[in-house]
Amino acid sequence: MDQHFMAHAIQLAIENVHSNRGGPFAAVIVKDGSIVAEGTNQVTATNDPTAHAEVMAIREACRNLNVFQLHGCGIYTTCEPCPMCLGAIYWAHIARVHFATLATDASAFGFDDLLIYRELAQPYSARRIPMIGVMREEALAAFRAWDEKPNKVTY
Amino acid sequence: MDQHFMAHAIQLAIENVHSNRGGPFAAVIVKDGSIVAEGTNQVTATNDPTAHAEVMAIREACRNLNVFQLHGCGIYTTCEPCPMCLGAIYWAHIARVHFATLATDASAFGFDDLLIYRELAQPYSARRIPMIGVMREEALAAFRAWDEKPNKVTY
Repeated sequence: MDQHFMAHAIQLAIENVHSNRGGPFAAVIVKDGSIVAEGTNQVTATNDPTAHAEVMAIREACRNLNVFQLHGCGIYTTCEPCPMCLGAIYWAHIARVHFATLATDASAFGFDDLLIYRELAQPYSARRIPMIGVMREEALAAFRAWDEKPNKVTY
Repeated sequence: MDQHFMAHAIQLAIENVHSNRGGPFAAVIVKDGSIVAEGTNQVTATNDPTAHAEVMAIREACRNLNVFQLHGCGIYTTCEPCPMCLGAIYWAHIARVHFATLATDASAFGFDDLLIYRELAQPYSARRIPMIGVMREEALAAFRAWDEKPNKVTY
């Protein structure tokens, strides 16, 4: 079954290239042996740099299941998730990740996956995008408002 | 001016808590001294685990500017971006990040930011979410289709 779902994702990724919708990436999300969502890279077609295949599939699965966490679901993605997508997978509480090509493959074909993995591991001062701290004390008020709120929906 | 934009983001984050729309996070994106987009955490209100403040602000800025990369823009976010959002910031080619509270503050108030940073730094085998490789050779066909495509829109 793993090969069945991944073969479907690979087919979607190739179709995505030929149809000019975006990069060569696709993902499907499976629950209880059935596909609950598909996603392909739509960055350039939709002017959304976050529209990676895994993010699109996660958003679609949550819409379809009417939830904001995907407990018990697996994701089949044609490429190892980039840090953005792996972060999304953790926030979504997906149970397991099946991936085909590697971040090194993506980088070999011109995508920034490895660069971003390296950047996240650096201290602020060594990153290519400057990170500037300001007003931490003032901003803690937002966390305190959250902490004191009764009946909040945690995630 | 930095304090002006961050103070506005902090106000949005506090309003977001009181209005029940989501977590205590907000971000604004600035270009040429003007705000071009605002975003707040909408995870629970919209059933979208990727609807963090920075992601929402990036999507809105790209819509407003009709682009898929935010060269020359700065982002003011009330909390150090989580790996998903920092990945999104790199993919969006944002020029600089102004942040207020730290990932350690977010974790102290119950959010998974630090956990996810630690997980991304681990080898596959040591992660909490199992990562299973399958069909790499077959999936390289998607990258080859991309490589061979004339007039593709790179990002």
